[in-house]
Amino acid sequence: MVNRRVHTIDWDRFLLPYEQAVEELKVKFRSIRNELKRKEEYSPIEFVTGRLKKVSSILDKAARLGIPLERVEEVPDIAGIRIMCQFVDDIDRVVQLIRQRDGRDMEIVEERDYIRHQKDSGYRSYHMIIRYPIQTAEGEKKLLAEIQVRTLAMNFWATIEHSLNYKYKGNLPPQVRERLRAAAEAAFQLDREMSEIREEIKQAQRLFERKSNL
Amino acid sequence: MVNRRVHTIDWDRFLLPYEQAVEELKVKFRSIRNELKRKEEYSPIEFVTGRLKKVSSILDKAARLGIPLERVEEVPDIAGIRIMCQFVDDIDRVVQLIRQRDGRDMEIVEERDYIRHQKDSGYRSYHMIIRYPIQTAEGEKKLLAEIQVRTLAMNFWATIEHSLNYKYKGNLPPQVRERLRAAAEAAFQLDREMSEIREEIKQAQRLFERKSNL
Amino acid sequence: MVNRRVHTIDWDRFLLPYEQAVEELKVKFRSIRNELKRKEEYSPIEFVTGRLKKVSSILDKAARLGIPLERVEEVPDIAGIRIMCQFVDDIDRVVQLIRQRDGRDMEIVEERDYIRHQKDSGYRSYHMIIRYPIQTAEGEKKLLAEIQVRTLAMNFWATIEHSLNYKYKGNLPPQVRERLRAAAEAAFQLDREMSEIREEIKQAQRLFERKSNL
Amino acid sequence: MVNRRVHTIDWDRFLLPYEQAVEELKVKFRSIRNELKRKEEYSPIEFVTGRLKKVSSILDKAARLGIPLERVEEVPDIAGIRIMCQFVDDIDRVVQLIRQRDGRDMEIVEERDYIRHQKDSGYRSYHMIIRYPIQTAEGEKKLLAEIQVRTLAMNFWATIEHSLNYKYKGNLPPQVRERLRAAAEAAFQLDREMSEIREEIKQAQRLFERKSNL
Repeated sequence: MVNRRVHTIDWDRFLLPYEQAVEELKVKFRSIRNELKRKEEYSPIEFVTGRLKKVSSILDKAARLGIPLERVEEVPDIAGIRIMCQFVDDIDRVVQLIRQRDGRDMEIVEERDYIRHQKDSGYRSYHMIIRYPIQTAEGEKKLLAEIQVRTLAMNFWATIEHSLNYKYKGNLPPQVRERLRAAAEAAFQLDREMSEIREEIKQAQRLFERKSNL
Repeated sequence: MVNRRVHTIDWDRFLLPYEQAVEELKVKFRSIRNELKRKEEYSPIEFVTGRLKKVSSILDKAARLGIPLERVEEVPDIAGIRIMCQFVDDIDRVVQLIRQRDGRDMEIVEERDYIRHQKDSGYRSYHMIIRYPIQTAEGEKKLLAEIQVRTLAMNFWATIEHSLNYKYKGNLPPQVRERLRAAAEAAFQLDREMSEIREEIKQAQRLFERKSNL
Repeated sequence: MVNRRVHTIDWDRFLLPYEQAVEELKVKFRSIRNELKRKEEYSPIEFVTGRLKKVSSILDKAARLGIPLERVEEVPDIAGIRIMCQFVDDIDRVVQLIRQRDGRDMEIVEERDYIRHQKDSGYRSYHMIIRYPIQTAEGEKKLLAEIQVRTLAMNFWATIEHSLNYKYKGNLPPQVRERLRAAAEAAFQLDREMSEIREEIKQAQRLFERKSNL
Repeated sequence: MVNRRVHTIDWDRFLLPYEQAVEELKVKFRSIRNELKRKEEYSPIEFVTGRLKKVSSILDKAARLGIPLERVEEVPDIAGIRIMCQFVDDIDRVVQLIRQRDGRDMEIVEERDYIRHQKDSGYRSYHMIIRYPIQTAEGEKKLLAEIQVRTLAMNFWATIEHSLNYKYKGNLPPQVRERLRAAAEAAFQLDREMSEIREEIKQAQRLFERKSNL
C-alpha cells in the first residue's frame, strides 16, 4: 500500500520535547513562587499549571494560522503554561519577572495584552510567546511555548468560555453569549473588589504566613 | 524540677493519627470525584484539600468551646477536609454522598448549613462533623473531623476573610468589614451567574471531557 | 453482527473500584510507615507501591484458575499492593500489623509464605489475600486484593524474573533459568549479609533519622 | 549590640537557589529517562533522586576541604542529584548523556570514577561536579552541584555505609567494617550476575513495556 500523504507525523514522538518543556517551565515558575513567598512573604504567583495542546486542536490551529503540517512547530501554543495571580496588579510583576529572563533561559518572541485590551467576548489575560531550549538525548531543541498570566477570576471565566465554545463550535447562541458576558462582568467585579482591598489582604496574608511558619 | 502542669501533650504524636485521617479522607473524596467524572462525565466535586489545624489554633478553639486540655480531642476540626464545587447546587449532591456513608466508613455527628443561613460576616459553606476510624500500629482510633463543602467563589472569599480576621484578631475596622462585604457580594453574584448558566456549562464540560479522553 | 459472547465487560468501569482500593491501601500502609518512623525511628516498611493488573493478565489468570468471566471478581490479585522491607525479619512484623486489622478495615482471606517455602524458581515473598470494602457513589463494594511483602533484594529479583517469564512465555531456556538462579542466590546472599549486620544498621539509621529531624 | 561574628549566614535564604537547582535537575534527568523509555523502550536511568545537604554537613565538609565560610558556595555537593541504573554498563551511557550537555544548560567541572577505582571501604559510584545556572527573582546565579551515578546495588550498600559511618563518626569497629565489606561483596556479586544476564533482561523489559503500553 502506498502512503500518499506527503507528510505524516509520529505525534507521540513529536510531543515528547514539548512535554519536557512544560515540565521544566512549571518547576521554574513554581520556584519563583516559593522564592518570593519565603523572601517577601507574598508572591504575585498564586499557582502554576501546564498543559500540552491536543493533536486535534494543534491541527485546527495550524489550519487557522495557515501553517502547513511540515512546519507545525510554528504553532505557538503547543506547550502552554498558565500562571494564576490573586490580584490584577500582580500580573505586571509576573510579566516583569519573565522579561528579566529574556536572553537567559528563554527568549521572548511576542507579547499580547488582553487585560488592557480585552477581547469582545470578555476574555482577559496577558499572553507571552517564548522560545525555550531543552536538552534531549539527541541534543538541544528550541521550542515555542505560550505563557498566559491571569487572575483566578479571569481563569474561572476563561475555563467556562472555553468549554462553551467547544460545545457550540464557536457559534454561541445569543442568550448563552449574553449570560457569559454577565458572568464575565461578575468576575471583573470580583477582581475590582479584590484590588480595592488589596493592600489590606496582602499585609494580612504576610502576617498569616509568618505565623504559620513558626 | 517539678512539672506543675496537670496535663502536657506531645503534639507531634497527638497529631499523627489526625494526619493519617486527613490523608485517607482526601484520597476517598478524590476517588468519588474520579468515579463520577468517568461515569457521568461531570463531578459535583471540583477539587479536595485537607489540612491539620495548627496547635495554637487548637488551643484557642478549645478555650473558646470550654474544652479542657485533657479532652482536647473533642475539638471537632483538628482534621479538616474542604470540598470545592463549581456550582451552588453541587453542594447538596456532595452532602447526599456523604450522608450515604453514615454508618459505613464514617459516622455523621453534626451538620451546619451556612449556605441557606449565611453568617453575618457574609461567610457561606456547608459544614459536617464526622467521626472517622483509623487503624494505627497501636490499634483502631476514632477521631472527629470537619468537612466543609463550598463553591470556588465561597472559598476564595473565605480564604481572604480568614487572613484578615487573623490580622485584626477578629476586630475588623468598619471600612475593612465594609469592603469585605462588597467582595462577598461580588462572589455571591458570580455564583448566581454560574447557576443561571449551569446546565449549559455542564453539558459543554461533558462534551469537552469526552473529547479529551479520546 | 451478533455478539455471541454471553458476558461482556466494560473494563474501564469494572476496574474503577479496584483503582480506588489500591489508592486507599497505599495511603494506609504509608501512614503505618510514617507512624513507626516517628515513634520508633525505624519502620519495617521501607516503601509501598500499588498496581492494577492489566486486562490481558486478568483474563489469563481467570483462565488458569478456571474462573468464568461472570465471576472474574474472584481473581484475587486484580488490585495489588507491594510492601518492601529492608530486612527479612521485618516481613514478619508487617504481617503481624496486617493480621491485627483483620475484621477492622479489611478481612484476611488467605496467606502464603513463599519465604519459608520458596518456589522452585527461586521466588521468595509473603502473600496475603484480603477482602477490602470501599465506598463508591453507588454504595459499598467489597473487593479482593493481594498484598505482597518482600525485601528490596527479593523485589529486585522478582521484577527481573517477571519480565523474563513474560518474554519466554513461561518457558525459560535452561541457560537463562540457570543465570536467574545464580542471580537469586546473589540476592539471597545480600539479604543474609544484611541480616547479620541488622542491629548495627537499625541503630545507625535511628541515630541518623533523629539527627536529620533536628 | 555589635555582632562580632565576621560572617553569618541566613541559611534558609542561602539554600533556596540550591533547592531550585535540585528541583530543575530532577525534572531534567527524569525527562531523559522518559524520552528513552518511549524511544528505545529501555532507559539506562532507572530513577532519579535529589537532596540538599544539611547545614551541619555543609559546615563539616567546608572545614574538611579548608573552605572558609565566606566562600561556602565552593562546597561542591550542597545540591546533590543521584541517578540509579539497573546495570553497571548503563552508568557509562548516563555519563555520556551528561557530557553532551557540557556548555549547554550546565558545565562539567570535574569527574571522579569510583567504579573503576573503588574506594578502600568498598564504595563504588561515578561522580560529576557541574556548574548550573538558575534564574531567580534577583537574576541569574551559577551554582555547583554533584551528580552521582550508580547501580541499585551500589546505592543500597552506600546508604547503609553512610548511616553506619554516621553512627561511629567515621571510626567503624573492625568487625562492623568486616561485615560491611562482606555486604559490599554481595552487592558486587549481584551486579555481576545482572551484567551476565543483561541482554536477556533488557530485551525482556522492552517486550514487557511495549505490551504494557497497548
